[in-house]
Amino acid sequence: MNDLAKLEGKPRCHCGVFGIYGHPEASVMTFYGLHALQHRGQEAAGIVSSEWLPEKKRFRFNIHKGNGLVTDVFRDGTVLRNMLKGKSAIGHNRYSTTGSADNKSNVQPFVVNYKGGNLALAHNGNLTNYRRLRSELQNSGTIFQSTSDSEIILHLTARSSKPTQIEQIQEALDAVEGAYSLVVLTDTALIAARDPYGFRPLCIGKLNGSFIVASETCAFDIIGAEYIRDVLPGETIVIDDDTLRSGQFHSIWAARKPEHPRHCIFEYIYFSRPDSRVFGESVDKVRRKLGKLLSEEDPITPEAEDDKVVVINVPDSSNTATLGYVRASNKRGLNVKMELGLIRNHYVGRTFIQPEQGNRELKVKTKFNTVKGVLKGRKVVVVDDSIVRGTTSKQLVKLIREAEPEEVHFRVSSPPIRFPCYYGMDFPSREELIANQCNGDVEAIGRELGVDSLAYLSLERLLEAAPSEDGRQYCTACFTGKYPIPIDSEGSKNENDA
Amino acid sequence: MNDLAKLEGKPRCHCGVFGIYGHPEASVMTFYGLHALQHRGQEAAGIVSSEWLPEKKRFRFNIHKGNGLVTDVFRDGTVLRNMLKGKSAIGHNRYSTTGSADNKSNVQPFVVNYKGGNLALAHNGNLTNYRRLRSELQNSGTIFQSTSDSEIILHLTARSSKPTQIEQIQEALDAVEGAYSLVVLTDTALIAARDPYGFRPLCIGKLNGSFIVASETCAFDIIGAEYIRDVLPGETIVIDDDTLRSGQFHSIWAARKPEHPRHCIFEYIYFSRPDSRVFGESVDKVRRKLGKLLSEEDPITPEAEDDKVVVINVPDSSNTATLGYVRASNKRGLNVKMELGLIRNHYVGRTFIQPEQGNRELKVKTKFNTVKGVLKGRKVVVVDDSIVRGTTSKQLVKLIREAEPEEVHFRVSSPPIRFPCYYGMDFPSREELIANQCNGDVEAIGRELGVDSLAYLSLERLLEAAPSEDGRQYCTACFTGKYPIPIDSEGSKNENDA
Amino acid sequence: MNDLAKLEGKPRCHCGVFGIYGHPEASVMTFYGLHALQHRGQEAAGIVSSEWLPEKKRFRFNIHKGNGLVTDVFRDGTVLRNMLKGKSAIGHNRYSTTGSADNKSNVQPFVVNYKGGNLALAHNGNLTNYRRLRSELQNSGTIFQSTSDSEIILHLTARSSKPTQIEQIQEALDAVEGAYSLVVLTDTALIAARDPYGFRPLCIGKLNGSFIVASETCAFDIIGAEYIRDVLPGETIVIDDDTLRSGQFHSIWAARKPEHPRHCIFEYIYFSRPDSRVFGESVDKVRRKLGKLLSEEDPITPEAEDDKVVVINVPDSSNTATLGYVRASNKRGLNVKMELGLIRNHYVGRTFIQPEQGNRELKVKTKFNTVKGVLKGRKVVVVDDSIVRGTTSKQLVKLIREAEPEEVHFRVSSPPIRFPCYYGMDFPSREELIANQCNGDVEAIGRELGVDSLAYLSLERLLEAAPSEDGRQYCTACFTGKYPIPIDSEGSKNENDA
Amino acid sequence: MNDLAKLEGKPRCHCGVFGIYGHPEASVMTFYGLHALQHRGQEAAGIVSSEWLPEKKRFRFNIHKGNGLVTDVFRDGTVLRNMLKGKSAIGHNRYSTTGSADNKSNVQPFVVNYKGGNLALAHNGNLTNYRRLRSELQNSGTIFQSTSDSEIILHLTARSSKPTQIEQIQEALDAVEGAYSLVVLTDTALIAARDPYGFRPLCIGKLNGSFIVASETCAFDIIGAEYIRDVLPGETIVIDDDTLRSGQFHSIWAARKPEHPRHCIFEYIYFSRPDSRVFGESVDKVRRKLGKLLSEEDPITPEAEDDKVVVINVPDSSNTATLGYVRASNKRGLNVKMELGLIRNHYVGRTFIQPEQGNRELKVKTKFNTVKGVLKGRKVVVVDDSIVRGTTSKQLVKLIREAEPEEVHFRVSSPPIRFPCYYGMDFPSREELIANQCNGDVEAIGRELGVDSLAYLSLERLLEAAPSEDGRQYCTACFTGKYPIPIDSEGSKNENDA
Repeated sequence: MNDLAKLEGKPRCHCGVFGIYGHPEASVMTFYGLHALQHRGQEAAGIVSSEWLPEKKRFRFNIHKGNGLVTDVFRDGTVLRNMLKGKSAIGHNRYSTTGSADNKSNVQPFVVNYKGGNLALAHNGNLTNYRRLRSELQNSGTIFQSTSDSEIILHLTARSSKPTQIEQIQEALDAVEGAYSLVVLTDTALIAARDPYGFRPLCIGKLNGSFIVASETCAFDIIGAEYIRDVLPGETIVIDDDTLRSGQFHSIWAARKPEHPRHCIFEYIYFSRPDSRVFGESVDKVRRKLGKLLSEEDPITPEAEDDKVVVINVPDSSNTATLGYVRASNKRGLNVKMELGLIRNHYVGRTFIQPEQGNRELKVKTKFNTVKGVLKGRKVVVVDDSIVRGTTSKQLVKLIREAEPEEVHFRVSSPPIRFPCYYGMDFPSREELIANQCNGDVEAIGRELGVDSLAYLSLERLLEAAPSEDGRQYCTACFTGKYPIPIDSEGSKNENDA
Repeated sequence: MNDLAKLEGKPRCHCGVFGIYGHPEASVMTFYGLHALQHRGQEAAGIVSSEWLPEKKRFRFNIHKGNGLVTDVFRDGTVLRNMLKGKSAIGHNRYSTTGSADNKSNVQPFVVNYKGGNLALAHNGNLTNYRRLRSELQNSGTIFQSTSDSEIILHLTARSSKPTQIEQIQEALDAVEGAYSLVVLTDTALIAARDPYGFRPLCIGKLNGSFIVASETCAFDIIGAEYIRDVLPGETIVIDDDTLRSGQFHSIWAARKPEHPRHCIFEYIYFSRPDSRVFGESVDKVRRKLGKLLSEEDPITPEAEDDKVVVINVPDSSNTATLGYVRASNKRGLNVKMELGLIRNHYVGRTFIQPEQGNRELKVKTKFNTVKGVLKGRKVVVVDDSIVRGTTSKQLVKLIREAEPEEVHFRVSSPPIRFPCYYGMDFPSREELIANQCNGDVEAIGRELGVDSLAYLSLERLLEAAPSEDGRQYCTACFTGKYPIPIDSEGSKNENDA
Repeated sequence: MNDLAKLEGKPRCHCGVFGIYGHPEASVMTFYGLHALQHRGQEAAGIVSSEWLPEKKRFRFNIHKGNGLVTDVFRDGTVLRNMLKGKSAIGHNRYSTTGSADNKSNVQPFVVNYKGGNLALAHNGNLTNYRRLRSELQNSGTIFQSTSDSEIILHLTARSSKPTQIEQIQEALDAVEGAYSLVVLTDTALIAARDPYGFRPLCIGKLNGSFIVASETCAFDIIGAEYIRDVLPGETIVIDDDTLRSGQFHSIWAARKPEHPRHCIFEYIYFSRPDSRVFGESVDKVRRKLGKLLSEEDPITPEAEDDKVVVINVPDSSNTATLGYVRASNKRGLNVKMELGLIRNHYVGRTFIQPEQGNRELKVKTKFNTVKGVLKGRKVVVVDDSIVRGTTSKQLVKLIREAEPEEVHFRVSSPPIRFPCYYGMDFPSREELIANQCNGDVEAIGRELGVDSLAYLSLERLLEAAPSEDGRQYCTACFTGKYPIPIDSEGSKNENDA
Repeated sequence: MNDLAKLEGKPRCHCGVFGIYGHPEASVMTFYGLHALQHRGQEAAGIVSSEWLPEKKRFRFNIHKGNGLVTDVFRDGTVLRNMLKGKSAIGHNRYSTTGSADNKSNVQPFVVNYKGGNLALAHNGNLTNYRRLRSELQNSGTIFQSTSDSEIILHLTARSSKPTQIEQIQEALDAVEGAYSLVVLTDTALIAARDPYGFRPLCIGKLNGSFIVASETCAFDIIGAEYIRDVLPGETIVIDDDTLRSGQFHSIWAARKPEHPRHCIFEYIYFSRPDSRVFGESVDKVRRKLGKLLSEEDPITPEAEDDKVVVINVPDSSNTATLGYVRASNKRGLNVKMELGLIRNHYVGRTFIQPEQGNRELKVKTKFNTVKGVLKGRKVVVVDDSIVRGTTSKQLVKLIREAEPEEVHFRVSSPPIRFPCYYGMDFPSREELIANQCNGDVEAIGRELGVDSLAYLSLERLLEAAPSEDGRQYCTACFTGKYPIPIDSEGSKNENDA
């Protein structure tokens, strides 16, 4: 069992969310929105629509969820038109909790019927006080259906004594801590909320008078919607019957408002699509700058400034940074060539069969192959976006060496990853991070990878690349260990994440 | 229903073939070989292995075929180890004949048991005297199970009065005309054959003493096999117990040997993977040259030589040609920038749901999105590899226009396609080809696409890019209408292709 | 969509339950127990096992549920051995709530994790104060996952402040009213409980030291277990580590203990298998007596006492009653012959395709055919167990008429059904009951069915057939409208039942 | 893996066939016909319809086949209406060749396109010169797709040089020997043929002007069709455009016409449904007579003529014979009671999980349970239709013994089975037949079964029960070893049957 991100040795993002209110084909739009957000979670998907039943004079929530890509889960497209009727819908992509006995109950959106009516919820992020809240709720008689932290929000909402659904949800959000970008569908509204630190992105768009909320703007582009603005950190917005209201719901947060937001800078480095705009800036632009700064900070040495130097990307995740790196290098007077030295096979499925004998590199070879002619005898500079465990990078280097380059140099457009993430990225344990195994000794890491030289982008330059007045508005905990929100002593991760 | 190649508006290749003899994990190797050849046919796949049953003292042919990608058909990987046992195997990827009532019977490899023993066949290409032969065979009492031209070869083999399987197959090949790159598995040998014109590629490789045959060398790379040479046009090779024999089987062909081979030049333009070597040359190298010649032949006009010019690829099919184009342009003193202006979503599945209202570009948008920042206000040069119907190109141009460039120029690294292919490419009918609709008037085509300028690579330059002494060793019928083999008067295409 | 019971025009029973504690193959035994109880619910099935994880020092509840027959849901038998490990298990058969958007969430057993640990529940019956309790729980913040009344018991248990699971469950049962025969699996025990009226059966068995609980004794026979006794009305028993404790838990019920139990007499008439023992008596014996009393009460008229009279059963539901009827008739000096005039096709699946033209009797013909030779020219007495809507009986009579009998007489071994059931049988609405449509006028019903004569068993004789001192220990509400438990004013049925 | 017939320890019939010509809902009628014939083959089913395509001015043969019951294969009922369009159709039920690597290719009807047009074939029976013909055909270049003997007929038809399809088929039938009841669909006709010995039944019916052919008349009853007559042994009938022609096609057979037909008497004993008419007689009537003669021939001994004697059937296969047995016994002055001592669970699926410990009788218990009250302390006479291996009978006796009868006597309404069948029944090998193991010593068989006495019906009486002038018109080879057609020296069974 392997998933695409794992194959690449990349951290996995928890999810992508999408919501639309007041569109005649709400679920079809949600399907395409999720399709555009597929990179944020490839292992389960679901859509919930709210349909008015005139004869019963009430709304019915229709739901379809399953494991697999969006196009797998909705392989029978008639489900969208025939079953997921209604003018409002929300959807969710996630990485699955495969192997867990109750995994299906963790697929979002979650739907419940409670005293306030219907409620569906899709959540991107991770709650840090999850264990404490779950324990408290269980002690007062609550039954949990899943092992997902997101379920907490539903129970807190249902237990709220506030009169309206929106106030109930707001009361629930006042109790949770951590990272959340939420879309919630009720009988009468689409609600979107983002935690006060704004860890995960959440954008507002509009399509012919219908408001939309999505993790990234690429979900607007696919359906021709226009980007309006981001949901602000700590903001809850309520969309109903073509109006969008904000602000008035924040009581407690006004008091505990953080000085700075803490956007996940990894969204710029790897997660988000380059054609998206997140945290108010084009990802392509930031990623290009990462490449540029990487080149400036760790310039190719003079002796390498000969014809033999070729710079190659790791398709598709480092395409943009590589372009930035090459252009900056040449601007500095070097004459390096960008080459397409690695070809990626995009038809990668879930089956991986390890041959019984030999050929240990097969796993990376199902995804990448080299163009031998452009590597042979060259000094190859590989630009990648990040290194997590290092196992994939190591195999990639081995693959490149088979094409007989003279040298292999590895450049990474982010700093060494040394700490786990508690806000919604799925890193392996600290012990598995190669940067930790080598105690941050870059040379040692380079030896482990088998490269002639290795260089990472520094934290200072990373923060320089992202739009910011003073660089303090990003969470960099995975590089620095400085966590904006203290972690629940009982541990903050879901059981399934452990 | 749509398939990937169709979504791109590209011609579809009929198939990819793979065979291996004498390897302890023959079917696992075939699985990975087919995986590397997935781009040659995405809609059905199959593997046949030959297993020695010691207690029965005979070989059993095991078979597993299905619709979908290789990784879908072999989603249950245990099939390879538990069912497809044996030391020899062949495999096939194909485009499906969806909608045909008997489509499953067309999925290859075909397996039969006849007087000579077991026989499995995988075929890439198209027979031009198919209808006449089928009619003759039917008249003499033959029953056909499929509508595939490949079945002909099996019946001719079964009806041969020659004493050995190899001679029987050879007799069958003496009777057929057209394009074929074949792998055949018998109880005692793996046979590979290529038609005298060598339309489709077929390469020989070796892995630890086991011979391999595959459509492209990328299938060798994935399993760590080494490339030996191509099967020659008109050659039949027989691999058994670690020896590879060639040559002696050609009787009739010696007489009708063509003066030149006629390799399909579209393999270089679009079909083959850039990391493959076909017809003796690296595809990457030829494709880079196509871009270079395209730039030289149709240089960007002086007024465009300003900062505003950006050159973008259509990922991933024109990546290499675009790189060649940009580099050649800059060498000529221009200062154009390559940009990643189009982002491709690789998670494209089979479901396409057309919204009831508006948004006609959705189909192309499920696959591509623009990076607006790099296109806005620019003079955009789009480099693509070919234009068939023009509908996808038109929608792509529309998508690019939404990013508000100042101008859009379209450059194509091959000549206008004006004629159908009878040798294994799946073009639409002549009437649907945009170059025909516009009578070859390039300006008219450009107006139809909505671009500010359009230019194609000339045929002369195309032939210059491909390795050749005199340019006469390629089939260019789709550009010129000059068919190397006359077409069966009854028509040469299968019913299902119509 | 049709189910077997519906095809027969019979009321449907809600479910069958099974539980076993301390057996090395607990889930395999549960599978066979459910298989024997298949007639109690054919549309969904599930098993939950409790497995001790030594390395984690806790129990894990494994669950497998699905729509269809037990043999469909567990078609992959390895699920039992590989997944449903553990020494204790419970299982449930039910009729599905097809068409309901959330039907899957209604398939039992329900499993939850709450403060007290794991809990799985399987319920046969119907709670009459369901709506009130649900409303109260929702108002205090409870979220419901299903529309099943059984879920109430879980929430009440989770909210109990009692210290032990058993006391918590008992507190929950003190709050609910209606019909319930329950099996509950906790981490440390198997609990079985039956409502104070004992509407539905629940028996205790033993297999090599492992206690078993099941709806009917036929579930013991299949696995070779021995019948011990019934769970008493109002009793809760706790089985753990080979001991079985009873009694001490009833606090409230001691006060509201009903004077008499109210066993569902329909279990004898139709629901239970004739080879089972329920309510302390062999079903075969009671059913035989029903036939006998039917004959005595409504003797065949003298003019019919000739050779022409044949008595036929409706296989298999009236087999036993017919035998009793025939034997009693002949004992009274008549000379009637039992014949197998109707042949039943047992391969009935879920597909029913109504032809567009004619042949309205096809539905009944997929299940029954006549043996023409034994009916032609005869005076046919059809013995059936009950008539609900009358539509199936009508078509059956039509089918019999096609075999050209001289006369058709219909005898029913129970009284006319005129009232809905609120305790676990799935009758149609009152308006659909043929006995209501005809205001109880038996002659009118007979005309509607198209028979020459019709007779029902009287209520007095029905009660005489069932073992009882005074006939007061049965619920006969469906015949009399006298409901032992008042019905919740809001209505007592689940939404899905409406 | 087990099938229903195997569970019962009965021989399995090869198949049931059905064909209809000129009905607007031909495939729906065929579905119901196959449903009625389900008992003749439960493991695979298929329907082929012939649809006129007005725009293409030709017929298309639509086909849907699969493993499982008819209702499983056509679970999606829309297949019948949307895909299997057309006014003519044929269908087939068969027992599968599970475990065979190429089993799917053996599912009928077979469909081919040959010089004469489309041809679909459904075959019930077994060809005795199969191996010789196959070998001859292969030697002349024929390729076989299946291991089924039925495929021979297709190739012989395709190779015929006769001008019309009907003559071609007739020529093919002139070459084959053995048992066959065939329905063949061509572009312009429905053809039915039966071998000269008439081993297997084949009946002609009519529904509103459309002719129908089916294995048994129960297939007519379900759709309201009327029985016309049987296809005669050696007859070929051609149905086209509302006419039915017969006779003129027999050239060779006129010469080799057998003196007597040789109907399979097992159709009366077990295969056919009691509500069917086969070989011109009601099965119910013959089967009743078998019971009567069994009683007369082997009367219950005087000391058994007390109240304690109960006679029980093995539901449902011996229901009719048991009724005949009881009635005859009582006519002879005995006073035995028929009881329903065995209850059969009809929800038997394909999963059988053998518990690891004990309980060896579980297999029979998934199908049968006893009604203890009617067996305890009684002298039980079990009437069954046949004994093959004896293993099931043995377990059944054990099950009955658990109910504590005083004695168990076994009566079989057919003679001991001692020889394999080469004409379409699937018996185990001779060695596995219990009657052979015990050398025909009935007492020894009885000891093996564990009964107090055992008696079989004699061959003379068996022939007396079936309608015949002189008893010579039945095949009794399985009892006597006298085979009407000599068996191919190479063996006559398909490989898959071995």
